[in-house]
Amino acid sequence: MRMFDVIEKKRDKKELSSEEIKFFIDGYTKGDIPDYQVSALLMASFLNGLTIKETTDLCYAMLNSGEVLDLSDIPGVKVDKHSTGGVGDKTSLIIVPICAAVGVIVPMISGRGLGHTGGTLDKLESIPGFNVNIDLKAFRKILRECGTCMIGQTGQIAPADKKIYSLRDVTATVDSKYLIAASVMSKKLAEGIDHLVLDVKVGKGAFMKSMEDACNLANILVLLGENMNKRVVALITDMQQPLGSYVGNALEVIESIQILQNRCLPEQEDLKELSLTLSGYMIYLGGKASSIKEGKEIAEKTLMDLSAFNKFKEFVSLQGGDAAALDDISKLPASMYSREITAPKGGYIAEVNALDIGKGSMILGAGRETVKDNVDHAVGVIIKKKIGDKVSLGDTLLEIKYNDEERLKIAYPLFEKALDIVDNYVNKVPIIKKIIGG
Amino acid sequence: MRMFDVIEKKRDKKELSSEEIKFFIDGYTKGDIPDYQVSALLMASFLNGLTIKETTDLCYAMLNSGEVLDLSDIPGVKVDKHSTGGVGDKTSLIIVPICAAVGVIVPMISGRGLGHTGGTLDKLESIPGFNVNIDLKAFRKILRECGTCMIGQTGQIAPADKKIYSLRDVTATVDSKYLIAASVMSKKLAEGIDHLVLDVKVGKGAFMKSMEDACNLANILVLLGENMNKRVVALITDMQQPLGSYVGNALEVIESIQILQNRCLPEQEDLKELSLTLSGYMIYLGGKASSIKEGKEIAEKTLMDLSAFNKFKEFVSLQGGDAAALDDISKLPASMYSREITAPKGGYIAEVNALDIGKGSMILGAGRETVKDNVDHAVGVIIKKKIGDKVSLGDTLLEIKYNDEERLKIAYPLFEKALDIVDNYVNKVPIIKKIIGG
Repeated sequence: MRMFDVIEKKRDKKELSSEEIKFFIDGYTKGDIPDYQVSALLMASFLNGLTIKETTDLCYAMLNSGEVLDLSDIPGVKVDKHSTGGVGDKTSLIIVPICAAVGVIVPMISGRGLGHTGGTLDKLESIPGFNVNIDLKAFRKILRECGTCMIGQTGQIAPADKKIYSLRDVTATVDSKYLIAASVMSKKLAEGIDHLVLDVKVGKGAFMKSMEDACNLANILVLLGENMNKRVVALITDMQQPLGSYVGNALEVIESIQILQNRCLPEQEDLKELSLTLSGYMIYLGGKASSIKEGKEIAEKTLMDLSAFNKFKEFVSLQGGDAAALDDISKLPASMYSREITAPKGGYIAEVNALDIGKGSMILGAGRETVKDNVDHAVGVIIKKKIGDKVSLGDTLLEIKYNDEERLKIAYPLFEKALDIVDNYVNKVPIIKKIIGG
Repeated sequence: MRMFDVIEKKRDKKELSSEEIKFFIDGYTKGDIPDYQVSALLMASFLNGLTIKETTDLCYAMLNSGEVLDLSDIPGVKVDKHSTGGVGDKTSLIIVPICAAVGVIVPMISGRGLGHTGGTLDKLESIPGFNVNIDLKAFRKILRECGTCMIGQTGQIAPADKKIYSLRDVTATVDSKYLIAASVMSKKLAEGIDHLVLDVKVGKGAFMKSMEDACNLANILVLLGENMNKRVVALITDMQQPLGSYVGNALEVIESIQILQNRCLPEQEDLKELSLTLSGYMIYLGGKASSIKEGKEIAEKTLMDLSAFNKFKEFVSLQGGDAAALDDISKLPASMYSREITAPKGGYIAEVNALDIGKGSMILGAGRETVKDNVDHAVGVIIKKKIGDKVSLGDTLLEIKYNDEERLKIAYPLFEKALDIVDNYVNKVPIIKKIIGG
């Protein structure tokens, strides 16, 4: 078999066989096939698409390029959640303690933020001492002890995906539904999970800009899960405006604490609703509720009795983090400066553009433009008004938390143009738009 | 400017600016842009196409990545010919001496054979001592002295094209009309020519299988030439069956000698006709005839008075070759063995498949599968009957010249299936199908 022929076949819109996909993944993982041939194949796959069979084969080959965890010796059903990435999306920090608190096992391997989207690992690392670089042995130990553990992708898990993702990142082949689906599922299935809940974001701040694209991706992910004998549910959720009120790493930890302590503000309702729904599905799939509705009710109880918050402190502590910082948020990183944007007129909020807010936050230092950039955990923005809210002249719309005047200067116009006030009444945006699979 | 953005733009079917193309070519030539980004861009260009403006910019940037010859100090009009590659195409060996004999200057930089198609350099190297690796200083000297010189692409001429061609060769991005056009023209225009005659092959043995594709490529090449202020004529010619009677390196030199000595056999009529027509255009464009018809008549005279054959011996000698081998072909490499294929029945030849003949010859050793393979100059095949010829049972159709029984075993079925005899009358194939530009 020759890589040349595999590239040519995909270039000519023909379906690759399982053997050809395995040949390419194995050869690339071993270093026998060079980057330049793989990037040509990736671009051909991006432009000509992959069939579900090819996507399944690709996922399977990447999954088996490294270690696949067997968690059968840990009692309980293993369920995980994956989000396709958005702005202000801190649901993992909320639903993981909720589910673990009711006995669902959540073995979560997460990613870092890139571009305008945040990453769970960066958020967790804003907690002093928190260690996301834990080997698989320690991962199993913590998982067994407290029902969850949240780490970064190690070289042992799906190394082919890691190598291919790095190449996609520099060859403009990231935003392909098929490649995204195979990548997500190869990592998630390597975690040894039984079921998976997906949060597919749609809107200005998401990779998928249209409902059609988001539903396509969700369908591919669900089909892929089925082909891998896993039960997968995908929620299509709004990413037109940021989720919740806080954007930025330590800021999102603070907001998660607020939700976990059941102190939800009106501008955080979308975050709470999504967190409870995702948890409801996970608790139901995890066998701890007889319906999704019951799962959601159980989830809400863990907020009221603080059992989820206590579970959060428990695993933060087990992963080396300072759990006291969750009770006393003055121990979390805080920015030196603050600047408000107020309403230039009264009316209704018509837009809080997630892409602008995400890019602005990235420029402040909350995110990274390239994988090599460092993150400033303290900076970000607090959104005081969401789409559909009524505002009066002078009301605070945004609170910008920053450390560097120069960066603020570049970011400020983005924050300013992110907001739009109109005279007429505007409907609120429902957070959950569609549910696929299950 | 970032290469990522250039790739993304082409991926999204947008037109690249002149600056973006220059940035990519300069960066790649210098080694600042890695292979894997260029191969992604090449695949995107292959699948999404390039506009004429992009193709012109690409050609211009590759042309200027190295030395562009200025031949203005050598008197006479400089005209060259380029063929898109075929089987049995030895016209360069015939038209170069014809044109040089009448005072048209032909500075020719040629390529090697790859796959089933032959290359002028390999044919020339079958002449003992002939040196195609001549530096540009010696090239100018020989050109001035005898009106022509035939060499291989040096590192000084269009190095960007050389680097990109190597990458296209291993990433299945060779057969793109736009990339082919930019590559051909960047090399040819670096020769310092005034005009160019193109032989665009169409049919089973050519890169372009359909008239539509061939005409498209020809149009792109002619437009590109115009954008570069050169007069370019493209002849679309048949490559359904091999050109002439001989296929293989030394064999094609022998056939060229036969034509130059005006000893044309019926099965060589297509080769003579094409050679005279191409020469006619070159002589006309070179200012040595007032019409193409007159150019063709002048060309024919050089065969009758042997002035072209003498010119051939002159530049072979100047390039280190043994000119005596052209008078006494027993000094040229010859195969050890010969095998005939005879007509299994009487009738009319309906097919002499150029692709099968080309592949069979390559397997015998006449061509190379990869650029690193060595060539056996002696082997090949002599075609005794062409499409439309009447044959009787037992007539010789092919004479296979070989050195290795094992190779013959693999190639023989290809030669056998290349031929088709039918009962009903079959028309001869006209060699010139269309003329574009001028």
